[in-house]
Amino acid sequence: MGRITVRRPVLALSGDGERPCERRRPDALAGEEPLELRVDGEPLAVTMRTPGADVELAHGFLLGEGVIGSRADVSAARFCDSRDADGRHTYNVLDVRLAPGVPPPRPDVRRSVYTTSSCGVCGKASLDAVRTSTRYPPASDPVTVSTAVLTGLPPTLRAAQRVFAATGGLHAAGLFTADGELLVAREDVGRHNAVDKVLGHALLDDRVPATGRVLMVSGRASFELVQKAVMAGVPMLAAVSAPSSLAVELAVEAGVTLVGFLRGSTMNVYARADRIERRGRWWSDLA
Amino acid sequence: MGRITVRRPVLALSGDGERPCERRRPDALAGEEPLELRVDGEPLAVTMRTPGADVELAHGFLLGEGVIGSRADVSAARFCDSRDADGRHTYNVLDVRLAPGVPPPRPDVRRSVYTTSSCGVCGKASLDAVRTSTRYPPASDPVTVSTAVLTGLPPTLRAAQRVFAATGGLHAAGLFTADGELLVAREDVGRHNAVDKVLGHALLDDRVPATGRVLMVSGRASFELVQKAVMAGVPMLAAVSAPSSLAVELAVEAGVTLVGFLRGSTMNVYARADRIERRGRWWSDLA
Repeated sequence: MGRITVRRPVLALSGDGERPCERRRPDALAGEEPLELRVDGEPLAVTMRTPGADVELAHGFLLGEGVIGSRADVSAARFCDSRDADGRHTYNVLDVRLAPGVPPPRPDVRRSVYTTSSCGVCGKASLDAVRTSTRYPPASDPVTVSTAVLTGLPPTLRAAQRVFAATGGLHAAGLFTADGELLVAREDVGRHNAVDKVLGHALLDDRVPATGRVLMVSGRASFELVQKAVMAGVPMLAAVSAPSSLAVELAVEAGVTLVGFLRGSTMNVYARADRIERRGRWWSDLA
Repeated sequence: MGRITVRRPVLALSGDGERPCERRRPDALAGEEPLELRVDGEPLAVTMRTPGADVELAHGFLLGEGVIGSRADVSAARFCDSRDADGRHTYNVLDVRLAPGVPPPRPDVRRSVYTTSSCGVCGKASLDAVRTSTRYPPASDPVTVSTAVLTGLPPTLRAAQRVFAATGGLHAAGLFTADGELLVAREDVGRHNAVDKVLGHALLDDRVPATGRVLMVSGRASFELVQKAVMAGVPMLAAVSAPSSLAVELAVEAGVTLVGFLRGSTMNVYARADRIERRGRWWSDLA
């Protein structure tokens, strides 16, 4: 489709002092297009994403929302015949047919809201909703990962970021083995989309629950990224930047090891440090 | 409410070589809680946000979606009596009452989807929807800003990021005058929320349309951030990181000056470079 990167003219200005420099040149930009996801013909969600790996994105999104738990829950995924003003196929509307017997998405998936009638809208209700809805609770996953493996993940992920190298403007996510082997990496203008693509790939590859795996993201760790890990049975989430408060709370409650500020040879561990091994030593749980 | 930052224990590991170091210490995390926005009692959207400036956030969100255009369009905004499992007020449900005669949100606001029946789901339809729905088209705004002012924006915004300084984990947005004076800065775990808070503040301050202003964001420039600028009548958007393809297309079509990779003394200009002045020289439009 050729829409993963788009070339545009740019005026590059540099140097405000004695030797200013200006040049007009073509620049590669990360592609961004809307994707409408339908389930059995019903519009469910629209996300602004980088085109490509859309079928993985749809599977990962539905896994994260608890609609599907394995590839067998989907009978077909195909692009609808959506056309732009010039009559060209947009490849921007994807319809997923659920297998017989798989219930349709709950109404609240449309609103991305986790509430219970007892508790109003609060962080605790959000945590409870994720913890009780996952089919693959990761708390008892016995995997351990060494600090040496962890510090090797960011450079490995970065090396796999082909579009970032061209545009400087994409989020990335990667799924790794406990030995640091990269299984799949995906890039997207949206943080959540990159994770959905990775976990959708794992699901299509019959690797969900992703027992013993490490999910690495190039940015921050928000509540929703930990949620996606929990729903896919991933026992460890590592992020280059900071986690939010609710991300840490969910990681603690759901038993996901959460690593933040993973840069160079340093890292912060916010939950389930007992899965991290350093020179033969394990830490007791932080929580 | 004390929820803007949250303290948690963290295990900090550093140095994988001869002199490894480990310590357990408290860490400040950026607060994250769900906010349910209701309009006239009807749930409209839920966003994961850093608590604080929620009334601004609601106004900015509704401005960006074309529901309101001035503070007069809102008759009241108040927190609903939402309580958590311990009976404490959550301050996580905000109801906005529209003034008499203001139409309710279109159904598609709930799905955040821009489509037209003629064109399916595509980038062009997204552009058209924004361009035709803004009350304050910024294309004819005659403001000019010097490169010296622009290069001063990132350090000024960073200096205003109090929560980032504590947590290392927040997005920021700021609204500046053409002379580089910071009018308002806001931080949030969500990029869009930080912008909504800033533009909602401007609206509540009767500064919308934000003619002659520069909106600066700490991260990337996505389609949706340019959309918010267009809806608020902001003629210039500057970002520390890369823009997406659709962000550039919308900026070109709507006449917003778009600056990316604004770092140190360098920047890339993707649209309407004619508003940028350098040593008395203006550039002709790129588009």
